[in-house]
Amino acid sequence: MAEPALGTTLKTICLATVAIIIMGLFEVGQENNSKTQNSQSTKSRPNFIIFLADDVGYGDFHVYGDPTQEWSGVDRMAKEGKQFTHVYTPVPVCSPSRAALLTGRYPIRSGIFGKSQVFRPTSPGGLPRSQFTIAEALQQEGYITGISGKWHLGINKYNNTDGFHLPGNHGFEVVNTILPLSQHWLCEQDKVHSKKMSEFCFLYRDNKIIEQPINLANLTTRLVHDTTEFISKYRDDSFFYLLSFPQTHASLFSDPRFAGKSKRGRYGDSINEMGWAIEEVLNHLVKLGIDSKTFVLFLSDHGASRDGCGQEGSNGPFRGGKFSSWEGGIRIPTVAWWPGVISPSKVSHSVLSTLDVFPTIMELANLTGHLANIKIDGRSFGGEIIEREESDLAMAKDRPLFFYCSKLLTAARLRNYKIHYYTSTYSGDERIVQEKLPQCSPENVNRVRNATCEHNFRKQVPPLVFDVESDNREHVYLDSKSERYLGIVDEFTELIRSHQSSLEVVESEIDKPPLSTLQPCCNPLSCICHYEA
Amino acid sequence: MAEPALGTTLKTICLATVAIIIMGLFEVGQENNSKTQNSQSTKSRPNFIIFLADDVGYGDFHVYGDPTQEWSGVDRMAKEGKQFTHVYTPVPVCSPSRAALLTGRYPIRSGIFGKSQVFRPTSPGGLPRSQFTIAEALQQEGYITGISGKWHLGINKYNNTDGFHLPGNHGFEVVNTILPLSQHWLCEQDKVHSKKMSEFCFLYRDNKIIEQPINLANLTTRLVHDTTEFISKYRDDSFFYLLSFPQTHASLFSDPRFAGKSKRGRYGDSINEMGWAIEEVLNHLVKLGIDSKTFVLFLSDHGASRDGCGQEGSNGPFRGGKFSSWEGGIRIPTVAWWPGVISPSKVSHSVLSTLDVFPTIMELANLTGHLANIKIDGRSFGGEIIEREESDLAMAKDRPLFFYCSKLLTAARLRNYKIHYYTSTYSGDERIVQEKLPQCSPENVNRVRNATCEHNFRKQVPPLVFDVESDNREHVYLDSKSERYLGIVDEFTELIRSHQSSLEVVESEIDKPPLSTLQPCCNPLSCICHYEA
Repeated sequence: MAEPALGTTLKTICLATVAIIIMGLFEVGQENNSKTQNSQSTKSRPNFIIFLADDVGYGDFHVYGDPTQEWSGVDRMAKEGKQFTHVYTPVPVCSPSRAALLTGRYPIRSGIFGKSQVFRPTSPGGLPRSQFTIAEALQQEGYITGISGKWHLGINKYNNTDGFHLPGNHGFEVVNTILPLSQHWLCEQDKVHSKKMSEFCFLYRDNKIIEQPINLANLTTRLVHDTTEFISKYRDDSFFYLLSFPQTHASLFSDPRFAGKSKRGRYGDSINEMGWAIEEVLNHLVKLGIDSKTFVLFLSDHGASRDGCGQEGSNGPFRGGKFSSWEGGIRIPTVAWWPGVISPSKVSHSVLSTLDVFPTIMELANLTGHLANIKIDGRSFGGEIIEREESDLAMAKDRPLFFYCSKLLTAARLRNYKIHYYTSTYSGDERIVQEKLPQCSPENVNRVRNATCEHNFRKQVPPLVFDVESDNREHVYLDSKSERYLGIVDEFTELIRSHQSSLEVVESEIDKPPLSTLQPCCNPLSCICHYEA
Repeated sequence: MAEPALGTTLKTICLATVAIIIMGLFEVGQENNSKTQNSQSTKSRPNFIIFLADDVGYGDFHVYGDPTQEWSGVDRMAKEGKQFTHVYTPVPVCSPSRAALLTGRYPIRSGIFGKSQVFRPTSPGGLPRSQFTIAEALQQEGYITGISGKWHLGINKYNNTDGFHLPGNHGFEVVNTILPLSQHWLCEQDKVHSKKMSEFCFLYRDNKIIEQPINLANLTTRLVHDTTEFISKYRDDSFFYLLSFPQTHASLFSDPRFAGKSKRGRYGDSINEMGWAIEEVLNHLVKLGIDSKTFVLFLSDHGASRDGCGQEGSNGPFRGGKFSSWEGGIRIPTVAWWPGVISPSKVSHSVLSTLDVFPTIMELANLTGHLANIKIDGRSFGGEIIEREESDLAMAKDRPLFFYCSKLLTAARLRNYKIHYYTSTYSGDERIVQEKLPQCSPENVNRVRNATCEHNFRKQVPPLVFDVESDNREHVYLDSKSERYLGIVDEFTELIRSHQSSLEVVESEIDKPPLSTLQPCCNPLSCICHYEA
């Protein structure tokens, strides 16, 4: 088993960190244990908060072009901070995209691939403990680490109470209210789309169920309360917090305070609720006077769904959505906020990836040495945050980004080019409307949501190449006989060969056969309980 | 002939205007001739500048969500002024959309409909002189009125030098460098798409050709020069200026200073050139110290084309484009700028129309009486400009908007609902990519550009209804058996009946048979000349 071995190695490596640079000041030193850092440098290092949205598309906010959505906390972050226009996720589905964010590595390296693409409640698989996360890296350096909200990287392994894969085993010291799985169609409380309250719907705190099914109405309020309480408690420490929002995942939910208020309907209500939550946290930082020492990053896990059920967000100008490698599936809204460090109303067009978040945080925390001996696929964009550099597309110049559906490398980007080896066969709402197909029909929904990658993607021979800078809708493909085409295809071939030669054979965590004995259930008689009511 | 009769009537009416309201101050008075207004009120009335863009889509600017387009003059206008998210044009094609803007009336009232949808160089038709324009209304009140750029509302009537339909006969006192027709595929100078320099390509000043074919490279510089010179000359008067940009119409052009600079390619270059021109004019107003007495409005004529030639703009999240009644064809970017009156970074979600511009300008100029006896289809949104009211969707609550292809009423909007009686059959780039159709093939291009409305639209029985607030992509149509559907269809039926009963039978100006004797030609030997070189 590779897991414990790699884990031990990493932890050993991290005991000998090289402290480097922050804010352009070079202060080289070497220490045996970072806990021995002088209190000055410990105090001056920033806190980190990540707001992670679920199934939110590139075009879902006013600052990203939605014509109807009300002004929200994300717009405020952009107005006071920096908006990114070219951030990609390597896989357009929940579990692998979250693994990529937390580890800085393509999910194919961590086993987060498989037929169903995401973890089910009875899966014995999860993010392997060998995978080093942002939370672990910071925790080792004395950061207090915490989480609220959606996890979706595994629950149990041996029995239905071991919580083997939960965040507490991945570097999160404080595990507040979490959804180990996700918001789900089967969990809706008004029962419009689903009649039964299912086995999908439970909240945990630490590694125990606290609520089953979930009272969705006040859930966001509880997540905010967890977060602000955490911040208050550790205001004098360095902290890292992941607030992972669940409400924009179909079938959506929001508190009665938000429900029915958005001109954009239920989806808009959920966006507004999330925006409110974000503002509560920002305001709390300002109130405590620690905003200028807290780097806050908002991003989505991947693009909005396109299943024709009218519960989806907007991918703005882009083709496709969740489950596809068109820009609509992989390009995500991303905003950074750090008063006093990031100037207001900045825009970055650099081509970045969620894989870059881990190394960026390490650079900003002055902990780059931690990653020296790990194969990290991302690169730090810390220079963009502290405004040391501002070169558009700089990050894309010399490195490719690869996009996957499970283990299938479907597309890649280099400079302004994107190549599609496989494209999603689902033409989505265009076909629904043109052919007046039934909307939200089980066929459509299953086709989009449950089809395997082999089923859902068609091989493109020759591959399609687009200039996604001049043609972000991906509608004018390059002539496959042109020199430009042939040159770029050769470049991609070589880069993919090199990327794939760096991959080791890893077992799929998602394909591990489900075990009914792993089903979370707080009470064998009914699986219903509300311990914190 | 209805033309002169109506024209005379209007002019008579306009001699007896009722001056009303400005800036919330009610100052009721009656005067026989507005020229007798006291100089105080004449001096305090605002100047007006309209920047009209060609084929520019809703999503073409950073503030409207384009992820690649460089920051431009339009973004600056939005940052310093007010961005509108719900402005519609009644017809998604050049000539009728421009008639609607200048007259405040559906083009079906003015004869600006017909098989080819737009005017050709040899057409004897044009905007009838009976149609009262913004320029005429303001000119009658002592405003100095001027124009540069694209016209496309007719040229000659009886012979190729009469300039019967040119702007000078529609209230524009100063007719600077104009394109009586339009930028066109056939006029491109690099000859990528077209080998011959055609009869489509000529510039006028007043009613004479000054250049044939057009030197496109420095054209924008000349248009800007015209505009700033006009402003300087009439800085102490009240003025109205229409700067009608041609460069974003396929096949696009830009000055070498801009060509090849945009990450977005040639289209981005054209947008940047236009943005530069806008900033030149804004800066000129500021330099002269008359910015706070000048209301500036930027808008496009209709949505971006979708002919698969890669020369198109972006319609943001919307379906369809030019030639269709999907939101992509009819919803346009619109920004108002008026330092000291409009506060910075405002956003309006009110549902408005280009039909509203004329009455808005009349209200802001304190000249509403001018329109009392004309059937104007628009309504003033002056209250939004001077920030007397700020109610989202206010304008849509009680009035429908109708959308046409030539004489065919294809769609309509009321409150948050949009009904499609006919939809464009062209599924555009989706089909091109999914079926790997040849791009920019004559078939595609002709299908989109030249097909008649009857050919290009399919009747929808029953009509399709969308909630375009919750579903601006128009992908979730209402169940045609639902009460909500049946109720709204009935409402639309009644509103359309009433609208159509207000229409008089009018001759088509566009269908008038072309006459080769009307072809503009500066020099019978070659049709080539450059009089202002």
